[in-house]
Amino acid sequence: MLFFTKKCLSALVLTLIWINSLAQQSILVSSPNRSIVVTAQNTPTGEVMYQVRYKGKPVIEPSGLGFVLSKPAVSLTRFTITRVDSSKTDETWKPVWGEVSQIRNHYNELLLALQDKSGSGISLRIRFRVFDDGVGFRYEFPQQPKLTHFVVDDEKTRFKLPADHQTFWMPGDYDSNEYFYNKTKLTEVDAIAAADKEKDIALKSIIGPNAVQTPLLFKTSDGLYVSLYEAALLNYPVMHLQLDKKSLTLTSQLTPDAVGNKAYLQTPSQTPWRTLIISDKATDILASKLILNLNEPSTIADPSWIKPQKFVGMWWEMHIGKANWARAEGKHGANTQNVKKYIDFAAKYGFNGVLVEGWNEGWEDWFGNWKEDVFDFVTPYPDYNIDSLTTYAQQKGVRLIMHHETSGSVTNYERRMDAAFQYMVKEGINTVKTGYVGRIIPRGEHHDSQWMINHYQRVAQKAAQYKIMVDSHESAHPTGLHRTYPNWMTSEAARGSEFNNAPTLGITPEYTTILPFTRMLGGPMDFTPGLFRFKLNQFDSTRTTVVRTTLAKQLALYITLYSPLQMAADLPENYVKHLDAFQFIRDVPVDWDDTKILAAEPADYVMIARKEKGAANWYVGAITDENSRDLPLDLSFLEPGKTYEAILYRDAPTADWATNPEAYVIEKKTVTAKTKLRLHLAKGGGCAVQIVRR
Amino acid sequence: MLFFTKKCLSALVLTLIWINSLAQQSILVSSPNRSIVVTAQNTPTGEVMYQVRYKGKPVIEPSGLGFVLSKPAVSLTRFTITRVDSSKTDETWKPVWGEVSQIRNHYNELLLALQDKSGSGISLRIRFRVFDDGVGFRYEFPQQPKLTHFVVDDEKTRFKLPADHQTFWMPGDYDSNEYFYNKTKLTEVDAIAAADKEKDIALKSIIGPNAVQTPLLFKTSDGLYVSLYEAALLNYPVMHLQLDKKSLTLTSQLTPDAVGNKAYLQTPSQTPWRTLIISDKATDILASKLILNLNEPSTIADPSWIKPQKFVGMWWEMHIGKANWARAEGKHGANTQNVKKYIDFAAKYGFNGVLVEGWNEGWEDWFGNWKEDVFDFVTPYPDYNIDSLTTYAQQKGVRLIMHHETSGSVTNYERRMDAAFQYMVKEGINTVKTGYVGRIIPRGEHHDSQWMINHYQRVAQKAAQYKIMVDSHESAHPTGLHRTYPNWMTSEAARGSEFNNAPTLGITPEYTTILPFTRMLGGPMDFTPGLFRFKLNQFDSTRTTVVRTTLAKQLALYITLYSPLQMAADLPENYVKHLDAFQFIRDVPVDWDDTKILAAEPADYVMIARKEKGAANWYVGAITDENSRDLPLDLSFLEPGKTYEAILYRDAPTADWATNPEAYVIEKKTVTAKTKLRLHLAKGGGCAVQIVRR
Repeated sequence: MLFFTKKCLSALVLTLIWINSLAQQSILVSSPNRSIVVTAQNTPTGEVMYQVRYKGKPVIEPSGLGFVLSKPAVSLTRFTITRVDSSKTDETWKPVWGEVSQIRNHYNELLLALQDKSGSGISLRIRFRVFDDGVGFRYEFPQQPKLTHFVVDDEKTRFKLPADHQTFWMPGDYDSNEYFYNKTKLTEVDAIAAADKEKDIALKSIIGPNAVQTPLLFKTSDGLYVSLYEAALLNYPVMHLQLDKKSLTLTSQLTPDAVGNKAYLQTPSQTPWRTLIISDKATDILASKLILNLNEPSTIADPSWIKPQKFVGMWWEMHIGKANWARAEGKHGANTQNVKKYIDFAAKYGFNGVLVEGWNEGWEDWFGNWKEDVFDFVTPYPDYNIDSLTTYAQQKGVRLIMHHETSGSVTNYERRMDAAFQYMVKEGINTVKTGYVGRIIPRGEHHDSQWMINHYQRVAQKAAQYKIMVDSHESAHPTGLHRTYPNWMTSEAARGSEFNNAPTLGITPEYTTILPFTRMLGGPMDFTPGLFRFKLNQFDSTRTTVVRTTLAKQLALYITLYSPLQMAADLPENYVKHLDAFQFIRDVPVDWDDTKILAAEPADYVMIARKEKGAANWYVGAITDENSRDLPLDLSFLEPGKTYEAILYRDAPTADWATNPEAYVIEKKTVTAKTKLRLHLAKGGGCAVQIVRR
Repeated sequence: MLFFTKKCLSALVLTLIWINSLAQQSILVSSPNRSIVVTAQNTPTGEVMYQVRYKGKPVIEPSGLGFVLSKPAVSLTRFTITRVDSSKTDETWKPVWGEVSQIRNHYNELLLALQDKSGSGISLRIRFRVFDDGVGFRYEFPQQPKLTHFVVDDEKTRFKLPADHQTFWMPGDYDSNEYFYNKTKLTEVDAIAAADKEKDIALKSIIGPNAVQTPLLFKTSDGLYVSLYEAALLNYPVMHLQLDKKSLTLTSQLTPDAVGNKAYLQTPSQTPWRTLIISDKATDILASKLILNLNEPSTIADPSWIKPQKFVGMWWEMHIGKANWARAEGKHGANTQNVKKYIDFAAKYGFNGVLVEGWNEGWEDWFGNWKEDVFDFVTPYPDYNIDSLTTYAQQKGVRLIMHHETSGSVTNYERRMDAAFQYMVKEGINTVKTGYVGRIIPRGEHHDSQWMINHYQRVAQKAAQYKIMVDSHESAHPTGLHRTYPNWMTSEAARGSEFNNAPTLGITPEYTTILPFTRMLGGPMDFTPGLFRFKLNQFDSTRTTVVRTTLAKQLALYITLYSPLQMAADLPENYVKHLDAFQFIRDVPVDWDDTKILAAEPADYVMIARKEKGAANWYVGAITDENSRDLPLDLSFLEPGKTYEAILYRDAPTADWATNPEAYVIEKKTVTAKTKLRLHLAKGGGCAVQIVRR
């Protein structure tokens, strides 16, 4: 289905124009609803430039594409277009779990076959997929006589912006994605200054003053939202971006390996998708399934063992100084009696899992020394009777969740992974929280380099062999791979709730309203919400850190930050003091049939409604930044003619994250599809609503 | 047992002098027989210098010791000597297998406790052990408050030579030890020019024009032989040497890791031993057990499963073009029928093992591309019926030997090693030949870097868990670790017989007379002798390569190059043509009760007699370089009064490696301890003698 016409925009789904003038070839492909148009152009000197428009407005100005390879040593930046193919796809698929029960994958595709003009004989392809909510494109290297094994020195994908947009950005860093988001004009990016402010990040590998991470969010002066990211990151390093402020151009900055190479590939192969999610409605950005659609279908034939779940665990008490991971330091958290307490609590309140950190030998000397042999993942501390606890948990209908902290020593983890997973199976444990705190071994590799990307995939694959679900911490940013590996349920890969305990920047009230527009576009996050105590001096009177939300907002985060593994992060003793509010955490599902993004503005507010998987009930979460605000909640998404009981967990009128975070009101209302509520959110506040069908 | 005297050499075993003058402290320790004296000196500026004398002659002039650490960033080169301890040891131990049945470990020891003068608070120790045949010293870092984890940036061990000795050297290279030995004055070292000549080494990581490898051999103008090497190389990189020609000083040049660091250590820890084997008799150098004595005792409590053995196998036919490793290339060597032929041959002629290379999937794309996932070590090619062959071999009293070629992708091997060894156990195979051809993954690491040294140790340890014997190829130079890990039987780690097929330098006649003075000092070598066909154009008429020995020399190599795993490397069809000569290979043992180095001169000749383990029979091997020569063989090592039958496998009078290599004579003689023979060795020739007690 390929059309060659002259200066004639056809009304067909897919429109291509090829101007057969002396030099310039121009090929267009539009989204199914024609709101997005991608144009590819072969310049007289052989460059292939692409541009993206949304409803006629430029989103990406003509920008270059290409590569520099170090083996063979060739620059792939000037091409002859040898073939143009196009197609359209409109299909619907069902995720194993998620925010919605089915996803439409609807796009027009353009495939450009390119021949290197430098005489190398190398050919490659660029595949564009244009959706109504954005664009994905990737490079493909088909099997060919002149290219088998090759080494990527540099990817030359450019994103030239039409104006100096408001930008939500994080310093480019090969090892940490736990920075705070900065909100500046693009030309005001100063990654080094931003990174210097962050005193709580232990390991930084800053790229440079003008390097930023993806996902990157722009808001244009005329109200367009654009997210620049990547999808299906496999066998390739994380893409960061280098900014040229003069030309407002971002260029891909791939994470190098130990010797400075970016990727080792073998034909046939392809890059991840470079993605743009585009809309003039902020809510559309959050509703987009473009990233997931650009990932391959699930590799797990029978996913019946993969179960979304909620868990409690030994974690926050370590952060706030009640307990320690290491046994030798005293106050060892993972002792049999304490774990029993958590099992009892989980059983009593209906949680599936109990996460136990600090359970295994090695924590006395685990961090900061690039030490290779730290943990063996199979040796519990002597005061942690895992066998008896496994039995005890089973009797109570609860499962332990295993913690595999690698301390960044991934060679060590890889050589022990089979034994570690076998040990989990033996202990009846089917969920693992992995951790990568510290500098990576193989030394010289980064959390974001190709070798590590392959590692995370290996973990997902090997865990699946053992029917183990994975929650990865300190891993690279997620790019929708939970479609392909649905047992890789969630990851941290951003500043999580633990930073509430960090002394310098902490977690600002606005931060969680930015996350859905950035990090969350790639996949679920184990943010660990649910803190019910806001001054963190409970066990250490010298601590001045506070959680900068209200209690009601903590509840709302269970809706606004999706994860199929959700933790109730606070201490049992803190929940017991607020059992009425805790009821929401007990009730809130972790798997959904439908999701409606009701209102959203980055750095201001987010309101989302979700329909419980296999049930008629809905849940709404609304959060705000440091400003108090009222959000209208139109319940027209409810089934018409039916009656529901809504339980509102809302900020009390006097609530304020800074002065009165624990002031909440629980209110019941009878509602229907015609009901219109107004949710009042305190400063740093939120509202969680459970809407149960009568 | 510490003596402080003033300018007074006591007649005691151990003599120390401490001159309590204003500045200079001087401490002496001598060898048990007093021929070797080591002096350590604390200079006024705080340096600790050591010097070594042999029979009064300087071997090492005063030379510095010390370190530069990068973490903590401190230079450890100026010290206060805080304690001096000494002791002596005289013990005898029995190796699991080897050249002799028991080894005397007899030395005087000096321990200097040093305090860093720079104010870091760091202390370390230097331990000298002085034997009658040489010196070993190492650095030790005790557990201490000011030093826990540390990173070695540089070791500053110096070896200042008193004169511009004749030197046998190889270019310093972090990845290959398969160079030819060069013989020049020390000041004539040109490592880059030497390396450039070597066209047959696929992977070079040359250090610089003045960098050479250890073991390094010197011959002084007054007839002293000195080998400079290291022992017990564990958790530390290989030491190469940087030469300063002006000062005739060699300085340790440790192999860097991917980020340029040399070693990551944690107290308590120590370096390998820096060793000097010294004698005015060349034969003493070869007889030295200093390297073994400086290694720790065996870690294997029950070594009954460790069995020296001889094997045949599918290897040479691949090198010379009869067969291929890869199946897709045709002529696949490791097919069931061909392996059966080797099993039949082994069974018929009394060999224990059959090595099968190219047995597993992956050889179609295994080399040269830094590819990580190459082999899985458990998937045989479909034409190789390993199950049936295992059974067949068992019926015939033979075992297959497994080949694990890692292609340098060690991360891949490590994550599969358990499964690979389990597979071997399942197949009843208890010997593995490992291979590390190619650039190492983790990328940036070298064959000689600390990470790889740790890997080789892990292989030895894990193999022992599975009762598997190891023959490692392309591993780092051996340093006597076969004492500690006696299942790590042998290694290549030098230019082996396969280079006979290399088109440029090949293997010169003198090369095998240098090996015992260099590479073999560290441990057994899987040189794979036993070639019976000398023109290698058998399967490829265009080949011009030849084996530059006579047939008799090939037999003698079984004696002069010790290995507890010895291959009969040639094709069965070549052996069948010379069954009379082949009888020697069938008969020669691989484990010995005693060894006598009868005559030796590096680059000229070697003659060694060995007594069969648990038997009264002796075997003699004599080899020469490109010159014909006669060597007197005095059989006084035989038991007096007993009669023996000697079978001499000798060069025929007309033999010559270049013109008539296959001309040999087999001659029987009745001999006693009083017999004096004269062995005639042709150019490139040798003589093998079996002496059987009547």
